Amino acid sequence: MLGIIQNMVSDDKDRNLIRAGDMIREAAAQGAKAVALPEMFNCPYDSKAFPLFAESYPAGETIRMLSEAAAANKIYVFGGSIPEKEDDHIYNTCFVFGPDGSLLARHRKIHLFDVDITGKLRFKESDTLGAGNEITVVNTSLGKIGVGICYDIRFPELARLMTLQGAVLMVVPAAFNMVSGPAHWELSIRMRAVDNQFYVAGIAPARNEAASYVAYGHSMAADPWGQVIGALEEKEGLLTVEIDSQKAEQVRREFPLLKHRRLDIYDVRG
Amino acid sequence: MLGIIQNMVSDDKDRNLIRAGDMIREAAAQGAKAVALPEMFNCPYDSKAFPLFAESYPAGETIRMLSEAAAANKIYVFGGSIPEKEDDHIYNTCFVFGPDGSLLARHRKIHLFDVDITGKLRFKESDTLGAGNEITVVNTSLGKIGVGICYDIRFPELARLMTLQGAVLMVVPAAFNMVSGPAHWELSIRMRAVDNQFYVAGIAPARNEAASYVAYGHSMAADPWGQVIGALEEKEGLLTVEIDSQKAEQVRREFPLLKHRRLDIYDVRG
Repeated sequence: MLGIIQNMVSDDKDRNLIRAGDMIREAAAQGAKAVALPEMFNCPYDSKAFPLFAESYPAGETIRMLSEAAAANKIYVFGGSIPEKEDDHIYNTCFVFGPDGSLLARHRKIHLFDVDITGKLRFKESDTLGAGNEITVVNTSLGKIGVGICYDIRFPELARLMTLQGAVLMVVPAAFNMVSGPAHWELSIRMRAVDNQFYVAGIAPARNEAASYVAYGHSMAADPWGQVIGALEEKEGLLTVEIDSQKAEQVRREFPLLKHRRLDIYDVRG
Repeated sequence: MLGIIQNMVSDDKDRNLIRAGDMIREAAAQGAKAVALPEMFNCPYDSKAFPLFAESYPAGETIRMLSEAAAANKIYVFGGSIPEKEDDHIYNTCFVFGPDGSLLARHRKIHLFDVDITGKLRFKESDTLGAGNEITVVNTSLGKIGVGICYDIRFPELARLMTLQGAVLMVVPAAFNMVSGPAHWELSIRMRAVDNQFYVAGIAPARNEAASYVAYGHSMAADPWGQVIGALEEKEGLLTVEIDSQKAEQVRREFPLLKHRRLDIYDVRG
């Protein structure tokens, strides 16, 4: 069982961490073996906030909290993302901890969100953030799990390469907005699932109308046939969904898309 | 303007051709500069029917009808697909004719539909059909147009390569069924459009409950932002949609997904 935590992000980091910690505990109590948090779950999604909230591994307080929550609850923790500082750079980073509290992976968002839709939406992550250069697939007791952050979901090549590396689930901490959310959020989650015949979980923060960037919310998960197996609305909440790697195997056997790729005509290469 | 023809396919080829010809004429009268027909628009979608209905280029009656309809109406005709015979093989082929009636392209379905969902759906195209080996992008006065047939839409690599070859529209003659249709038809059309920021038109036959394979219908088109710009239900009908290559350019400029691909990390190669 995967716990999907849609927490309300405020501009008070301590409050964000306490709330996230409570919700991780609640997910574990409900039987989750892994939990996932949203993008920038400890920090407002705002270029001005990123440097102020940034932390370095391993001493940062959010990073320590995630590791401790993993160990205390004996679960995998996909720590959404936080602004991570290393040398002079800040990254949009997902830290992943195992049930013993050890660091299993660190996914830095590969695709930076630089868009400018006239009169509707403008954001330029590359003003403050550096980009990651690695595809992240983590080995867990639930199966192999790929990690992409928000805009990373928009590139079918990435999900495909995770699949070819054996992923049965793609975890996507994200913060789609009120333009891209209604237009593309559910569609993207379901279609990456359909194309790759694996589970996809999109984890969003709760909608905070007072924020400079208003998140869409609507955390949800799709199964390997693209069916929505659980969804929240815009309010804070916890969602749990079953992840069954046998279901992925069955879909791949009965409707063998992956085998039917024409590698003599095209290929996605990493 | 693109005319999308959702004709009812019967087991009477002459009747199918007369109906298709009438609907092409009607689309042209409404102002369409190009029309597209569904997969196997002249033949029941049934492995036993394919050899009986198969034709060879250029003498086949369906092939001649399509060429003549293109010339008579001075429009591009994307001839859905028909069983095409060459030597000892049958292909699932889309013939494309220009406004002067000349053959512009011949797309043979690349991905054969071989699926077996226990108790729900079984079809094995490879029992009777050979597979095409070429990606098809046609130069027209509406812009470059890619052609994929039905199951071809399920492979994101193919749509991506068409985009990289300059396509602003992907035409997909198809015959999704009552299992895959409700689950994946609209999703697939919209998401290929979102990912590639081009138009996608899915052209289905009308639903014939008496057929051995019942098609879902629901022909529809999505714009480069993934919005549905026109859709039919299950009955026979004609749909016209505007194709505006400037719209694709605008979406690609404001939300530059294609530029943001990380070619240092992955690439799709043909």
